[in-house]
Amino acid sequence: MELKVHNWQLLDPAQRRELMQRPALYDDRGLRDSVRAILESVRARGDAALQEFTERYDRVTIETLRVSEAEFAAAEQSVPGTAIEAIQLAIDNVRRFHEARPSSNYEIETMPGIHCRRIAQPIDAVGLYVPAGSAPLPSTAVMLTVPAAIAGCPRRLLCTPPRRDGTADAAVLVAARRGGVSEVYKVGGAQAIAAMAYGTETIAKVNKIFGPGNAWVTAAKSMLAADAAGAAIDMPAGPSEVLIIADELATPEFVAADLLSQAEHGGDSQVILITTCQQLAIRVISEVDQQIASLPRRAIAMSALQSCRIIVASDIADAIAISNQYAPEHLLLQVRDPHAVLHSIRNAGSIFLGDWSPESVGDYCSGTNHVLPTYGSARSFSGLSVDQFMRHMTVQELSEDGLRSIAPAVLALAGLEGLDAHAAAVSRRIQQRSDSKASR
Amino acid sequence: MELKVHNWQLLDPAQRRELMQRPALYDDRGLRDSVRAILESVRARGDAALQEFTERYDRVTIETLRVSEAEFAAAEQSVPGTAIEAIQLAIDNVRRFHEARPSSNYEIETMPGIHCRRIAQPIDAVGLYVPAGSAPLPSTAVMLTVPAAIAGCPRRLLCTPPRRDGTADAAVLVAARRGGVSEVYKVGGAQAIAAMAYGTETIAKVNKIFGPGNAWVTAAKSMLAADAAGAAIDMPAGPSEVLIIADELATPEFVAADLLSQAEHGGDSQVILITTCQQLAIRVISEVDQQIASLPRRAIAMSALQSCRIIVASDIADAIAISNQYAPEHLLLQVRDPHAVLHSIRNAGSIFLGDWSPESVGDYCSGTNHVLPTYGSARSFSGLSVDQFMRHMTVQELSEDGLRSIAPAVLALAGLEGLDAHAAAVSRRIQQRSDSKASR
Repeated sequence: MELKVHNWQLLDPAQRRELMQRPALYDDRGLRDSVRAILESVRARGDAALQEFTERYDRVTIETLRVSEAEFAAAEQSVPGTAIEAIQLAIDNVRRFHEARPSSNYEIETMPGIHCRRIAQPIDAVGLYVPAGSAPLPSTAVMLTVPAAIAGCPRRLLCTPPRRDGTADAAVLVAARRGGVSEVYKVGGAQAIAAMAYGTETIAKVNKIFGPGNAWVTAAKSMLAADAAGAAIDMPAGPSEVLIIADELATPEFVAADLLSQAEHGGDSQVILITTCQQLAIRVISEVDQQIASLPRRAIAMSALQSCRIIVASDIADAIAISNQYAPEHLLLQVRDPHAVLHSIRNAGSIFLGDWSPESVGDYCSGTNHVLPTYGSARSFSGLSVDQFMRHMTVQELSEDGLRSIAPAVLALAGLEGLDAHAAAVSRRIQQRSDSKASR
Repeated sequence: MELKVHNWQLLDPAQRRELMQRPALYDDRGLRDSVRAILESVRARGDAALQEFTERYDRVTIETLRVSEAEFAAAEQSVPGTAIEAIQLAIDNVRRFHEARPSSNYEIETMPGIHCRRIAQPIDAVGLYVPAGSAPLPSTAVMLTVPAAIAGCPRRLLCTPPRRDGTADAAVLVAARRGGVSEVYKVGGAQAIAAMAYGTETIAKVNKIFGPGNAWVTAAKSMLAADAAGAAIDMPAGPSEVLIIADELATPEFVAADLLSQAEHGGDSQVILITTCQQLAIRVISEVDQQIASLPRRAIAMSALQSCRIIVASDIADAIAISNQYAPEHLLLQVRDPHAVLHSIRNAGSIFLGDWSPESVGDYCSGTNHVLPTYGSARSFSGLSVDQFMRHMTVQELSEDGLRSIAPAVLALAGLEGLDAHAAAVSRRIQQRSDSKASR
């Protein structure tokens, strides 16, 4: 591997912009047209279309989309005990962290006689998508099912692609069931997203769709989010990213291992190291060279490392400024005092402090969610939490006196906006009260 | 007005579906093409394009887009004192309600040595849009600026269309300034949204765009939300809606006034009454006939009432079920015991309890936000609050022992997913620790 080290101080603005670029998202017109056709077919023909697309793309005929009790039982049998324990530990930690959030309900009297309140409600029906891709992802099943269960969404369903033999991955089934979702369908890709958004004979429509996916799934989600007859979605999606800030005290072996654990995700994974120490950069590169040799997924990692960026910054403040500008999905702080640095971090999905917090613990089981904003959307989106499975309603209740005291303001504002019926809705009430007082 | 009363019990499923329909959203291909052309022009040519579109659509030449100190001062002078007091009261109540939300930050130890935390951060730069349309909307400026200021977003800017004389509405300027936003630009429509999303020479790019607008603005927002180079948006938008549940104790005069205050918003406003009392329905219709005669905006209200639905339900439980299915933006409960009903409400943007809580108090100054989910999106979206001006980062920090205790689970899960570099990032750390222990 030829990994180049860039000295930020020596770069001109154009070169700096270039280093902060993300790869163009796959936005093929052909892909969007294909996805649109799938959405329309599923909407028009329901289950029949799901069967067809599953035969075409997954190369298998699925008689019964829904996973049966017998399949769940077989899955529990087939997954090794240590793996089941690991899944359960992940569920327990994710539940502990997500459950601990403070309630968002509250109530105040904004003026005497004017009571305002906010009430959280779980979304009625949510659809969770667990991709299969190059490997099964039971950890994603954990990250989606646990917060949905804590929110208390009355209907929670999960779709995951069938394998060639017509079964769903056993570990995904175990994770889903233990995470609190037993309505699972063997269907994947854009057709699964369409089925959840529009509903079919078998899969009843949901209000919001969650979870990662390939370019087809992502395109389907974004189209359905823009369709009032579709469904809301969790967040936009792009390739996974890690940015490591390391100083001269960081351990090159660990930094290299963390860069590689991101690189093995996919050829488009974004892998960035910013260090205040040129020496460290060189040692990390040498470690990467050594470690990559033994990785089963080294071809993928090599491909991701083509676009790896190793940047030397003049000091930690500079390193943080570059990171805040990039807004990475995962940010690792392997510096002398990560707590001192933390308060200046503005834009990041999830942050990992110190030598003993590799990204893979967050990916799997520290308790935080691994569904995180990518492609710079950490500037405006949060990672997945129980919040996104709920919404708030506000409530107001005025007493007669409360209405009377606020009435002049309503009338003045309605006057400014030329909305007389808005004023009348208040003045008729007050008038009536005065009339009834007068007639006493 | 010929307002028809529908008896829910007597309707077949198709008729019920028909009554629950919303009007098709304006989705003209021509409009979308025009909006796309505007977005591309603004992105390519910046301020010059803004000038051109402002000349074309607002019929005025704006030399300096940004509102000057002198213009703010003139606005404070020109708005009557009672109106300024009303704006200030609205700001104070909205601030009180929005500020009172509980903090969403928290921290727990999910396992010994594994600390997980959530930290809220204001979004760096937010763009607020206040439409002009048939009337100026200072109340919308209040609803957008106050939560943005409470969140503490470092950069907050507001765009509002210029009038023919080249000025911005004085009340909107007063509300914006007092709400905490002094970066205001006189530009409207899709071009304003494009300017905020992409940035121009004068208007620096924002991360998220908030606020209502006409079909052009809505189309621009939805296109930019799907563009990774664009900006996030607050929520999808459709025509405004009210649904009133009233029993035999409701006051027909008030119910009629509330229906009309929604109807005067626009010809596409959705106005629905569900009552358990046929008699009340008839009396409300007669009140609407009387009250509409004196309304300045009666032509608009008449047009909205064409699609008004008055439904008689067999009991309150039925009425609530219908309302939950519809998921109205505004829900008014004018029934004997609104508190008893409240706990069964699942889907609504904002709820108004009892006779003394007309929708117009929430529109203006009770303290709740009037930017609310429409068109059924109350099923998955919340009304605007401080939350939407922030996002969360999660943080994890493991001790050496914490990592050691969770390591077997990470290794097992990485094994299930075939991600060896994920496992190595943990095992290399533990191995190193063991080595250094052994060498002591």
